[in-house]
Amino acid sequence: MSTNDKTLTSSGFYVSQEAPIHADHPIPTPSAPAPDILRCAYMELVVTDLQRSRAFYVDVLGLTVTEEDEDTVHLRSLEEFIHHNLVLRKGPVAAVAAFSYRVRTPEDLDKAVAFYTELGCRVERRAEGFTTGIGDSVRVEDPLGFPYEFFHDVDHVERLAWRYDLYTPGALVRLDHFNQVTPDVPRATKFMQDLGFRVTEDIQDEAGTVYAAWMRRKPTVHDTAMTGGDGPRMHHVAFSTHEKHNILAICDKLGALRMSDRIERGPGRHGVSNAFYLYLRDPDGHRVEIYTQDYYTGDPDNPVVTWDVHDNQRRDWWGNPVVPSWYTEASLVLDLDGTPQKVVARTDASEMAVTIGADGFSYTRPEEGEASMPEWKQGEYKLGHQL
Amino acid sequence: MSTNDKTLTSSGFYVSQEAPIHADHPIPTPSAPAPDILRCAYMELVVTDLQRSRAFYVDVLGLTVTEEDEDTVHLRSLEEFIHHNLVLRKGPVAAVAAFSYRVRTPEDLDKAVAFYTELGCRVERRAEGFTTGIGDSVRVEDPLGFPYEFFHDVDHVERLAWRYDLYTPGALVRLDHFNQVTPDVPRATKFMQDLGFRVTEDIQDEAGTVYAAWMRRKPTVHDTAMTGGDGPRMHHVAFSTHEKHNILAICDKLGALRMSDRIERGPGRHGVSNAFYLYLRDPDGHRVEIYTQDYYTGDPDNPVVTWDVHDNQRRDWWGNPVVPSWYTEASLVLDLDGTPQKVVARTDASEMAVTIGADGFSYTRPEEGEASMPEWKQGEYKLGHQL
Amino acid sequence: MSTNDKTLTSSGFYVSQEAPIHADHPIPTPSAPAPDILRCAYMELVVTDLQRSRAFYVDVLGLTVTEEDEDTVHLRSLEEFIHHNLVLRKGPVAAVAAFSYRVRTPEDLDKAVAFYTELGCRVERRAEGFTTGIGDSVRVEDPLGFPYEFFHDVDHVERLAWRYDLYTPGALVRLDHFNQVTPDVPRATKFMQDLGFRVTEDIQDEAGTVYAAWMRRKPTVHDTAMTGGDGPRMHHVAFSTHEKHNILAICDKLGALRMSDRIERGPGRHGVSNAFYLYLRDPDGHRVEIYTQDYYTGDPDNPVVTWDVHDNQRRDWWGNPVVPSWYTEASLVLDLDGTPQKVVARTDASEMAVTIGADGFSYTRPEEGEASMPEWKQGEYKLGHQL
Amino acid sequence: MSTNDKTLTSSGFYVSQEAPIHADHPIPTPSAPAPDILRCAYMELVVTDLQRSRAFYVDVLGLTVTEEDEDTVHLRSLEEFIHHNLVLRKGPVAAVAAFSYRVRTPEDLDKAVAFYTELGCRVERRAEGFTTGIGDSVRVEDPLGFPYEFFHDVDHVERLAWRYDLYTPGALVRLDHFNQVTPDVPRATKFMQDLGFRVTEDIQDEAGTVYAAWMRRKPTVHDTAMTGGDGPRMHHVAFSTHEKHNILAICDKLGALRMSDRIERGPGRHGVSNAFYLYLRDPDGHRVEIYTQDYYTGDPDNPVVTWDVHDNQRRDWWGNPVVPSWYTEASLVLDLDGTPQKVVARTDASEMAVTIGADGFSYTRPEEGEASMPEWKQGEYKLGHQL
Repeated sequence: MSTNDKTLTSSGFYVSQEAPIHADHPIPTPSAPAPDILRCAYMELVVTDLQRSRAFYVDVLGLTVTEEDEDTVHLRSLEEFIHHNLVLRKGPVAAVAAFSYRVRTPEDLDKAVAFYTELGCRVERRAEGFTTGIGDSVRVEDPLGFPYEFFHDVDHVERLAWRYDLYTPGALVRLDHFNQVTPDVPRATKFMQDLGFRVTEDIQDEAGTVYAAWMRRKPTVHDTAMTGGDGPRMHHVAFSTHEKHNILAICDKLGALRMSDRIERGPGRHGVSNAFYLYLRDPDGHRVEIYTQDYYTGDPDNPVVTWDVHDNQRRDWWGNPVVPSWYTEASLVLDLDGTPQKVVARTDASEMAVTIGADGFSYTRPEEGEASMPEWKQGEYKLGHQL
Repeated sequence: MSTNDKTLTSSGFYVSQEAPIHADHPIPTPSAPAPDILRCAYMELVVTDLQRSRAFYVDVLGLTVTEEDEDTVHLRSLEEFIHHNLVLRKGPVAAVAAFSYRVRTPEDLDKAVAFYTELGCRVERRAEGFTTGIGDSVRVEDPLGFPYEFFHDVDHVERLAWRYDLYTPGALVRLDHFNQVTPDVPRATKFMQDLGFRVTEDIQDEAGTVYAAWMRRKPTVHDTAMTGGDGPRMHHVAFSTHEKHNILAICDKLGALRMSDRIERGPGRHGVSNAFYLYLRDPDGHRVEIYTQDYYTGDPDNPVVTWDVHDNQRRDWWGNPVVPSWYTEASLVLDLDGTPQKVVARTDASEMAVTIGADGFSYTRPEEGEASMPEWKQGEYKLGHQL
Repeated sequence: MSTNDKTLTSSGFYVSQEAPIHADHPIPTPSAPAPDILRCAYMELVVTDLQRSRAFYVDVLGLTVTEEDEDTVHLRSLEEFIHHNLVLRKGPVAAVAAFSYRVRTPEDLDKAVAFYTELGCRVERRAEGFTTGIGDSVRVEDPLGFPYEFFHDVDHVERLAWRYDLYTPGALVRLDHFNQVTPDVPRATKFMQDLGFRVTEDIQDEAGTVYAAWMRRKPTVHDTAMTGGDGPRMHHVAFSTHEKHNILAICDKLGALRMSDRIERGPGRHGVSNAFYLYLRDPDGHRVEIYTQDYYTGDPDNPVVTWDVHDNQRRDWWGNPVVPSWYTEASLVLDLDGTPQKVVARTDASEMAVTIGADGFSYTRPEEGEASMPEWKQGEYKLGHQL
Repeated sequence: MSTNDKTLTSSGFYVSQEAPIHADHPIPTPSAPAPDILRCAYMELVVTDLQRSRAFYVDVLGLTVTEEDEDTVHLRSLEEFIHHNLVLRKGPVAAVAAFSYRVRTPEDLDKAVAFYTELGCRVERRAEGFTTGIGDSVRVEDPLGFPYEFFHDVDHVERLAWRYDLYTPGALVRLDHFNQVTPDVPRATKFMQDLGFRVTEDIQDEAGTVYAAWMRRKPTVHDTAMTGGDGPRMHHVAFSTHEKHNILAICDKLGALRMSDRIERGPGRHGVSNAFYLYLRDPDGHRVEIYTQDYYTGDPDNPVVTWDVHDNQRRDWWGNPVVPSWYTEASLVLDLDGTPQKVVARTDASEMAVTIGADGFSYTRPEEGEASMPEWKQGEYKLGHQL
C-alpha cells in the first residue's frame, strides 16, 4: 500500500477508496459474469456427536430447530425467515461441508455454474438441493479450496422476531458472516472481488503484506473475511445479537453451566468492524462468533479501512491480547466427496509472529511504539515465545 | 387484500409475498427506468430560529456539525461518511425543502430527470448541487407533491464511529428513514414501487383500506413510509442509535434540561418494524424519531407484513396509546420555489378515527375484540371524542 | 413546609434535612421502642384464581417457586435467600393479607408486640408462623388499618444469583418495596417515623398538602411509601431488575403473549426516586411495579427530596401522563380475620385533581407555568375532565 | 474450614453461616466498642502529576470536581451528596494517604479514638478535618499498617443523580469499595470483624488457607476486602456504574483516546460478588475498579459464600485469565507522617502460584479437575512459569 493512496484518520487507521491490496499470483478473472449474491445464508457443519452439538446450539445458544432427523439438525436464529441458517450434520470428522450463499434469482445459479466451470472448478448442481428446505443448488470446490454453495429457492418459515416469549437473554437474531483461513490473502481477495464482493477493511504492514481482509455483499462490514493462515480452513461463523448485554449474558450462562471453557476470546470490541464480539468453541472446536453493531457499508464509494498490523487495537479496540489458539486453530473444510481438503501452509509472515511473537511488536500509540504497550501484559503479549 | 393471499402468523399479523395493496387511482408507470436509489441520505429542514434549532440538534441530540454559516448548519450522525445527513436552513416558514436520496452512479441522475420528466413533474438539476458538500443533484416536485432530491457526488468526511470519546449516552449513529403523509396511500405506494421501492409492511382493515405502508431500498424496514393523512406533509425523519438505553438516555437528558415537553410519544416498541422508538418534536414542531433494531429485509422474497388496523399492538407493541397529535400534526413541504405545497385532505377513513375515535375500536386479542382493551386506559384510548 | 427550610436544586426539586411533613392528627408515639426492621420482606396476596395468578408470576414474570400446594404458591426472585418474597393464596376476594417485614433479631418480635399493643392495635403472634418457611411471627392491624407482619426466623433457600441459566430477559432479582394508599399522608408518615422509618422523598404543594411520601429502612429510597387516596389499600408491590432493558423485555414479552393489556403505566423514568419503572396489573388487578436503579440513602443526614405536586416531571421524569387508574385503583387489604378493611375517603385534595383535573395544572418549567406543558398532550393531561 | 459447616450450592461454591476463617495470630479484641461505621466514604490518593491524574479522573472517567486548588482536587461521583469521594493530592511518591469511612454520629469519633488507642495504634484527631469539606476527623495507623480515617461531619453538595445532561456513556455513580493487600488474611479479617465488619465472601483452599475475604458495613458485598499478598498495600478503589454497558463504554473511550493500555483486566463478570467489573490503572499505577450489580447482604444471617481457590470461575465467572500484575502490583500506603509503610512479604501460598503457577492448578468443573481448563488458554494460564 503506497502512502499517498491513504488518509490517516483521527482514530489511528487509514482510509482509501480502492482496496489497497495487490495480488502477485492472481486467479484469472473469468469472462463469465459472477452470480448476484445476496448474502451469506447458512453454514453446513459436520459434527462428530450430534446430540452434544445440538445441546450446545439449541440449549445453550438458543437457536430454533426448524426441522431435524437422526443425522441432521436444521437451525435458525430469531429474525431469519428462510428454512435455516445453520445445519449440523453427523459425520466422522469435524469439518465444514458448505459455506452457503443466497443469490438473487434462480438464473444466478446458471451464472454460478458457468463462472466456476470456466475456472476449472468441480461443480455439482442438484435441483432438489443438498439440504432439506433448500431447492435448486450449486456446490463447488472453489479455486481456494473451499466448498461454496449457491441457492435461491428456499422454504419460508415464520420469522420469530416478534416472539419475545421465546427470547433468551442471549438471543441470536441473524447469521452475520463467515470467516475463512487461506494462505495467500491478496490472491483470495482478488478472487472474491471477481465474485462480486467489495473489500471493507483489511490489515497490512508497511511492506504491504496483507494479514486479513473483510468483504461484503449485503451492506454490513462482511459476508466473509479472509484470514491469513494455513488453509483452506474455516475460522468461524458469526451470529449477531441485538445488544451488547446479550453477548455478556451468553458468557454468564456458560459460567452458570460450568462451560466457561467454551469461551475462547472476548468479549470485547473489535477495532476492525467496530463490532462488539465474543468467540466460542463448539464441542468439536468449531469457532462461533457472537457479534453486534458494525456499520453500514452499502454505498459504492464506502471508504476502505486499513489497519496497521502493529496497531494493538486493530483486533481488540481495548488492547486485550488475542489468545494464540485464535490465530492458529481452525476447522477443516470438505471437498464435494466429503473428504477434508489438504491444508497448505502460509508462507507470508503470520500476524501472531509479527505482533506477539519473539521478534514482533505492537503499539498502543504509534509515536511511542512498543513502549506504549502495557507493562503488566507483556507476559501475555509475548506468549509467542512459548509456542 | 383477499384472505387467501395471506398467512396469519403466531404474532397476530399476516405475511404475504406481494404487497397486498391495490391503487384505484394510480399514477401511470413511466417507460423511462427509475434511478437506482441506494438509500435515504439527508433531509433539508427549514427552521425559523436557526440557533434554537442548532441547540436542539447539536447540544441536545449530539449531532456533529460538519460545516455551518449564518443561514445553514450541516449535520451528521456518528457513522456517516458523507458530508451531512441533516441540513438546517433558516427560513420564514418551518417546512421540508428536500427529501434527499443517494443514487448508485452519476448516470442515475440522468435517469431521474427522464423518469420525472415523463411524469410531467417539475425537475431542476444543478451541477454544483443545492447544498454544500453535495455535487451534481436533481430536485423534483414529485407526483405526490413532495420535494425529492437525488445525488451521487458528495464530499467524504471522517466516519466518527470509533470516536467513542465523542459519544454521548444517546448517541445517534445513522439516518434511518423518512416518513411522509399523503392522502391516498395505495396511490403513493404504487408510485414508489415504480421508483424501485419494495413494500415491507403495511396497515390495513378488512375492507382493504390502507392506512400506512413502509418501503425500502436499503435492506432495512424502510427508507420512507407513507402515512395516510392530509398531505403532502412530512411526518418525521428518523435517526438510529445502537441500543435501546441510548434512547432512554435522550429522554433522561430532556428531563434534566426541563425540555420533557419535546417528547411527543414513546419510548416504546413498534409492532410495525419491531423497532424500539421515541418521537420528539423540534423547536419548530418538526417530528424526529429515534429508532433502533429493526430487521434485515434485503431478500427479494422478503415477506410483507400486514397489520390489522384494529390490532392495538400494531403501532405500539406494548399497547400504549398513540397521542392524537401524532396522527394529526405534520410538517409542510416546499415546492422548488420554496413555497409550501397546498395540503389536500384525506378522504379515506383516518387511522385515529377507526381505532380510538368515537366509533372506532381496537383489540389486544382479536378473539375477544374490544373487551380485550385495558379498562384503565379507556379514557386515553377514547381521546378521539375530545378532538 | 416553610420556604427557608428547603434548598432548590438545579434539577427543579427541593432538598431539606428533616422530612418537612407536619401531621395535624398524629397517632401518639408509643413509649415502647419500635422493633428494628431490616427490610420489607414479602407480601401475601389473596388471589381469586390461583392457577391464573401462578401463570402470571411464574410463566410471565419468571419468579421461582420455592414451594406450593393446592392453595398457596411461595415465590422468590433470583437474589433472595429467604424462603419467599411473595405468597399467592387462594381466596374469595382479591386483597392483601400481609405486608411482611423482617426484623433484626427474634427479640424484636417482643418489641413489635409491645409497640402495637400500646397503640391499642389487634396483635396476633404465632410461633409456627403464618406462612410456610417463616417461623415465629407477629401480625397486627396497624393504626392505619394495614395488616403488617414481622418475623425473624426463616428457612434459607439457595440464592440463585449466579444461576444465569435460569435468567429470563426480564429477570426479577429483588423485592424492592411496598406502596400503601392512605387518606392522611402526614398522619401515616409520622406513624411510620415512630416505627423507625426515615422519609427520603415526598410530594407537596405550596400550601403544605402532602400527596405522597417515601420512607425506608434498608438504604434505598423506600421499603414502603404512603400515597394519598381512599384507604387503607395497597397501591403496589415492587420487584427490581438489574438493568433497564430487563424491564423493556417484560413489555416485549407481554406483547408477544398478547397480554399487553396487563401494562398499566410506563415504562418510564420516575422523578421521585430517579428509578426506571413499569406498572403491571396482575389477573386480579393487583398492581406490580418493576423497578431499577434508585440511589443510596443510608446516611442519617441523607437529604430529603421534596417535589412540587405541579411539577410534571415528579411522577415521570419524561413528562409522560399518569393514567387515571393509577391514581384511583388499588387493592383491598384484610384484617386478621381475613375480612376486607373498610375504605375511608381522602378529604385532602387528590393529586390527580390538582394536576390533570379540570382545575388542576402542571408545568414542565416552573417559570413558564402551564404554558410549558406540551400542546400535543393536553388531551391526555386533561383526562380528568372525563372522569 | 471443616466440610460439615458448609453447603455446596448448585453454582459450585459453598455457603455457611459464620465466616469460616480462623486466625492463628489474632490481634486482641479491644474492650472499647467499635465506632458505628456507615460506609467507605472516600480515598485520599497521593499522585505525582496532579494535572495528569486530574485529566484521567475528570476528562476520561467523568468524575465531578467539587473543589480544587494547586495541590488538591476533590472529586465526586454523580449520586454522592457529601463533598467528595476521591481526593487527589500532589506528592512525591504515589501512595494512599487515607481509607476514609463515614461513621453514624459525631460520638463515634470518640469511640474510634478509644478503640485504636487501646490497640496501641497511633491516632490523630483534627476538629477541622484533614481535607477540605470534611469536619472533625480521626486518622489512625491501624494494626495492619493502613491509614484509616473516620468522620461524620461533612459539607453537603448537590447530588447530581438527576442531572442526565452531565452523564457520560460511562458515568460513575457511587464509590463502592476499597480493597487492601495484607500478608495474613485471617488476622486482618478477624480484626475487621472486631471493627464491626461482616464477611460476605472468601476464597480458601482445602487446607484452610485463606487467599482473600470480602467484608461489609453497608449492605452490599463489601466496603473493603482483604487480598493476600505483600502488604500493607492498596489493591484498588472501586466506583460503580448503573449498567454493564457503562463499563464497556469506558473501554471504548479509552480505545478512542489511544489509552487502552490503562485497561489492566476485564471487563468481565466476577464469581466473587457476582458483579460486572473492569480494572484500570491510573497514571501513577493506582488501580481503579469499575463495578456494577452485586447483591443485597444486609440481613444478619446473610450466607457467607466460600470459593475454592482452584475454581477457575471464582475471579472471573467466564474463566478468563487473571493477568499476573493484578496479583502482584499494588499501591503503597502512608503513615500519618506521609512516609510509605514498609511492605511485609506474605508467607502463605499466593493465589497466583496455586492456580496459574508452575505447580498450581485450576478447574472449570471440579469433577474433571485440570482437564476441564480450556486447552487454548493453557499458555495464558501458565504464565506463572515466566515470572
